Amino acid sequence: MKSGFQSKTSIDRALEIFLGSFAPLAGAERVRLDECDGRVLRADVVSPRDVPHYDRSAMDGFAARAQDTFGSSRDTGLHLRLVTREPVGPGECMRVHTGSPIPRGADAVVMLENAEVAGGSVEVLGQVSPGQNVGLRGEDVRQGDVVFRAGRQLRPSDAGLLASMGLETVEVFPRPRVVIIPTGEEIVPSGVEPLPGQATESNGVMNQLYVRRYGGIPVLHGIVVDDREKLRAALVESVDHDLIVTTGGSSVGKRDLVPEVVAGVGEVLVHGVGIKPGRPVAMGYVEAGKRTPIVCLPGYPAACAIDSMVFVDPAVKRLGHLPPTPHRSVRAVLTRKVPSDAGYRTYVRVCVEDGKATPMRAKGAGILSSVAQADGYVIVPDDLEGYEAGETVEVVYLE
Amino acid sequence: MKSGFQSKTSIDRALEIFLGSFAPLAGAERVRLDECDGRVLRADVVSPRDVPHYDRSAMDGFAARAQDTFGSSRDTGLHLRLVTREPVGPGECMRVHTGSPIPRGADAVVMLENAEVAGGSVEVLGQVSPGQNVGLRGEDVRQGDVVFRAGRQLRPSDAGLLASMGLETVEVFPRPRVVIIPTGEEIVPSGVEPLPGQATESNGVMNQLYVRRYGGIPVLHGIVVDDREKLRAALVESVDHDLIVTTGGSSVGKRDLVPEVVAGVGEVLVHGVGIKPGRPVAMGYVEAGKRTPIVCLPGYPAACAIDSMVFVDPAVKRLGHLPPTPHRSVRAVLTRKVPSDAGYRTYVRVCVEDGKATPMRAKGAGILSSVAQADGYVIVPDDLEGYEAGETVEVVYLE
Repeated sequence: MKSGFQSKTSIDRALEIFLGSFAPLAGAERVRLDECDGRVLRADVVSPRDVPHYDRSAMDGFAARAQDTFGSSRDTGLHLRLVTREPVGPGECMRVHTGSPIPRGADAVVMLENAEVAGGSVEVLGQVSPGQNVGLRGEDVRQGDVVFRAGRQLRPSDAGLLASMGLETVEVFPRPRVVIIPTGEEIVPSGVEPLPGQATESNGVMNQLYVRRYGGIPVLHGIVVDDREKLRAALVESVDHDLIVTTGGSSVGKRDLVPEVVAGVGEVLVHGVGIKPGRPVAMGYVEAGKRTPIVCLPGYPAACAIDSMVFVDPAVKRLGHLPPTPHRSVRAVLTRKVPSDAGYRTYVRVCVEDGKATPMRAKGAGILSSVAQADGYVIVPDDLEGYEAGETVEVVYLE
Repeated sequence: MKSGFQSKTSIDRALEIFLGSFAPLAGAERVRLDECDGRVLRADVVSPRDVPHYDRSAMDGFAARAQDTFGSSRDTGLHLRLVTREPVGPGECMRVHTGSPIPRGADAVVMLENAEVAGGSVEVLGQVSPGQNVGLRGEDVRQGDVVFRAGRQLRPSDAGLLASMGLETVEVFPRPRVVIIPTGEEIVPSGVEPLPGQATESNGVMNQLYVRRYGGIPVLHGIVVDDREKLRAALVESVDHDLIVTTGGSSVGKRDLVPEVVAGVGEVLVHGVGIKPGRPVAMGYVEAGKRTPIVCLPGYPAACAIDSMVFVDPAVKRLGHLPPTPHRSVRAVLTRKVPSDAGYRTYVRVCVEDGKATPMRAKGAGILSSVAQADGYVIVPDDLEGYEAGETVEVVYLE
């Protein structure tokens, strides 16, 4: 099959061409704070109030005028009259709890531990300076402050801060709607017993889960057989989504019709990439009233999975204004040589144990269990012909 | 407030006591593959079929008897008769595509590129050995193989493999249902303008998002005021959940009633932990027909967030049979000294830029913006009194 490709594009160049061919989504959506996790702010968030919105006590204790406590200590107590109404006048104090408003007249709080109550008076056993144990209005956030910039991906503590500012919803970018179209006349839906020569649909369901992780909303289309008219119709009817992903039929064999059909209803920008597994991937757009980017993934499951992570993920991220997926990695020593062809970036599935990375004994791109059983992958760069046993490599976790 | 605690428990000991006081959930749930991401298998998964379930061609080309090709090469072609029906007899071959069943009689596939078709015959330009370019039945997965062990957390490529085995659903452990009860007479719901001395509910919504991330199903309870009877009623009515989380009122002040109420309807196992921020946290259980673990989080937002990550996360993980949350971290050089009290594990919020970690200038546990604005945190171990400026530390990302 490989020899059928006239040329191949490097991964970096393919991404540059493809991601450069469409713009991030322009729409907006308003979500409640309890649904904002992972969403991306469309505009700066300005606080509508001071947080706290009043001067508050940071301690349980007694609010007083700081100057009235000067000179007091464990040895030399000073007595203040305990009052229950504002304002707190000279020589007076008033009981406060953590979070209580500071009563008018008072400018500091004597901690409970530094005071002794005796009848209607309080003996202060340590002086406080003005502002001590007082949380000033706006000390956390000031009204009018830009608390978060547009483009920030929200996390749970952000929701807490936004709630405390009095906000109930935030404006975010929409999540990209990604239609996934499994193709191939040999593919049967789950629940149907496949005959020899047939296989149960699996790339579609896998990509549904991947797309959700990337930050998109997956929509699984029915299986489309290898028929130019039916493929064309499926692409045209899918153009209202933000991204189209097909699986299968993306190579250059007789039954690989997808890139040809894309060329007929839009444009193929890249076909054949220097990636292993996953060379037979195509990218471009479908144009039917609207222009919609498309990634045509190969049908071989391992190739489909790797191409999805390498090409569909950044496309969803770009459409949704999302930051790149964070990957965890670990350094490990290869237990076996991994060969690689120069000109290809090779994703070698490995198992990791005790700091050692063992490449999976998998026969090729058709073997999905090589992805499912792997702990992660080692990337052999385009310009290397593999790694030797004993070399220390970086393993990116498959999580 | 601190001095009100008679003692404190180390984080490790607190987790040991608390997590040892309840068992993982015993229930089961069956989910469709398109909803299985992140779920944990309750039983081993055994493949009901071979994958592939037939001997298939790994190439486009011609299926033949390998022995009939022996001796052929680019220079010395050998001619085979092209047939269109099984079985493939001596001196015959049959066209196959990638994924086609291998016809009876044939045991190898000659690649398209090594063959030339001329009328009713095919010239073979290279010999193949038995089994060459053939994917044998069961080469990916064998019927009866244990493909995944109980306890595995599923990921998208697993769903693909499970689908290709003909499975439509999997049995998983249930997700823990976590009720979150915000408490405090000063707390008002969002949408209500808070008066001086009041604050908008924010810890509940923050914990909703955290619990979802931990792997649980959050249920937000209404705000409960600082009243023993009302708190008690809220705890008792919440006992049917798998975990109860309260926010606020967990310290030892006059208005901190939650631990006392827990003690009345169950048991407080830990109260006061060597963690900063977040010392005033309590853990135990509520018993009312059923015993349900409870974490009482402090009301100070930063303390609440850190305690949630340190204590609620592992509790949800244990209940749900989930593996620990993976954290990404980076090594960075501290730009300022961070003090810490021995006996406390301190979570210092920092911003990271160009390999440098700058501690947030936050005044205390009341400042949620210190969590929201931080890129991550540095953990100062219990037995250290802080880190000096210029020390290299590990920053765990807040994501």
